[in-house]
Amino acid sequence: MNLILCEPGELGAEGIVTLTGVRAQHVRTVLRVRPGDRVRVGVIDGPKGRGEVIAIEDDAVVLACALDDPAPDPPAVDLLLALPRPKVLRRLWAQLAALGVGRIMLTNADRVERNYFDTHVLDEATYRPLLIEGLQQAGDTRLPRVSIHRQFRPLVEDELGPLPDGERRLVAHPGASSVLTLAGTSGHRPVLLAIGPEGGWNAFELELLGRHGFTTIGLGSRTLRTDTACVALLALLHEALCRDEGAAPPG
Amino acid sequence: MNLILCEPGELGAEGIVTLTGVRAQHVRTVLRVRPGDRVRVGVIDGPKGRGEVIAIEDDAVVLACALDDPAPDPPAVDLLLALPRPKVLRRLWAQLAALGVGRIMLTNADRVERNYFDTHVLDEATYRPLLIEGLQQAGDTRLPRVSIHRQFRPLVEDELGPLPDGERRLVAHPGASSVLTLAGTSGHRPVLLAIGPEGGWNAFELELLGRHGFTTIGLGSRTLRTDTACVALLALLHEALCRDEGAAPPG
Repeated sequence: MNLILCEPGELGAEGIVTLTGVRAQHVRTVLRVRPGDRVRVGVIDGPKGRGEVIAIEDDAVVLACALDDPAPDPPAVDLLLALPRPKVLRRLWAQLAALGVGRIMLTNADRVERNYFDTHVLDEATYRPLLIEGLQQAGDTRLPRVSIHRQFRPLVEDELGPLPDGERRLVAHPGASSVLTLAGTSGHRPVLLAIGPEGGWNAFELELLGRHGFTTIGLGSRTLRTDTACVALLALLHEALCRDEGAAPPG
Repeated sequence: MNLILCEPGELGAEGIVTLTGVRAQHVRTVLRVRPGDRVRVGVIDGPKGRGEVIAIEDDAVVLACALDDPAPDPPAVDLLLALPRPKVLRRLWAQLAALGVGRIMLTNADRVERNYFDTHVLDEATYRPLLIEGLQQAGDTRLPRVSIHRQFRPLVEDELGPLPDGERRLVAHPGASSVLTLAGTSGHRPVLLAIGPEGGWNAFELELLGRHGFTTIGLGSRTLRTDTACVALLALLHEALCRDEGAAPPG
């Protein structure tokens, strides 16, 4: 936990917040704070700063927060993900938030098992704490927005629609050409990355995505598990966006 | 399972192999083969090819294999990893093999808990099947070589020693400059990537690695969990190596 995240409503007058439960335990037993110490604090979707420990009780730690750093920029990447197995998705939530994604759209696809939609891993009460865990690991405050789509075609045709100017859409498909095509994402915000089910998108899905502005990318000759592919592609995409920005001439 | 892997000793005369257990079950119930069908087959650390189904029995599938594709090149990246928590390491084995690493050196470090060394996740009987699972996912045959080092300093000073000509060494450290320094790895084989414990390397360890030719790299401002960092950095490194090769002038 590299950043203690609070809900916006938790901060009282003059930035006082009382941590309880897991966060209090972490501050007391892992960070081993004493009154007067300062810890990194942030507000979900809001600013970051420092919290000074003003009291330590049995199951509570009271902080006086000065949140002087503005909210981080929202992540430049959105994710359209064919719903993975519940076990895989459970592992993914924190990792996705840690890597930074603006939106997580979970969708049905031909090779998604229908019963995957019945899992409690799709309940906000389950995934929200996992997303927050990832943000606290990475030191970010921007909570990914999650939506669940049981029908792929209306999602692509009606909700996404034609590619808006200035955006970029990529679809990962095993065996497709390398990720070198990630170059040239400069200035495109957000980038929407689509990752298919374990068995891949079917021909209809790929064609539909192609007609809605998605360029196909791959990861070389290796076929990766969904969770590995998500982390690998998000890392590559963030790095490509940074590289493009670094390479762009000033002004 | 995109490739069925066999032990070298399993292949009999004329390439006949009898699959049992998990592999037979996969071929029968997931691939749903019939006699005459062909499946992708490989030999651990050896060639790949096709296996024709010549018999299906209750708990066995007999294949006649023609292994015409040479063994894949060994991965260009080796990993020096501070021993992570057993739960994290268990998740990592298959992912590391799927991404492709030549060697996995697991080491002690100041911020590694001593009891992490007592786990059965470090037993070859536990990790070898997980590595093979990752190879079967990715379609590779090159089994990573694993070694366990309870003392960091002798590992770096005596076993690794000075940086050999033509190799490259990188150490990941949170908050260090970006991975842009991955550029210029062209022609360096292998690249040895060192990834520290959750709390990071300590100053002595970083200094020791620096004196033995390791260049510090980071992943931007985000601090990632060990498993996320491993996958992200290996993906970036493989892509940088491909990019360099693609960019290098012929001859």
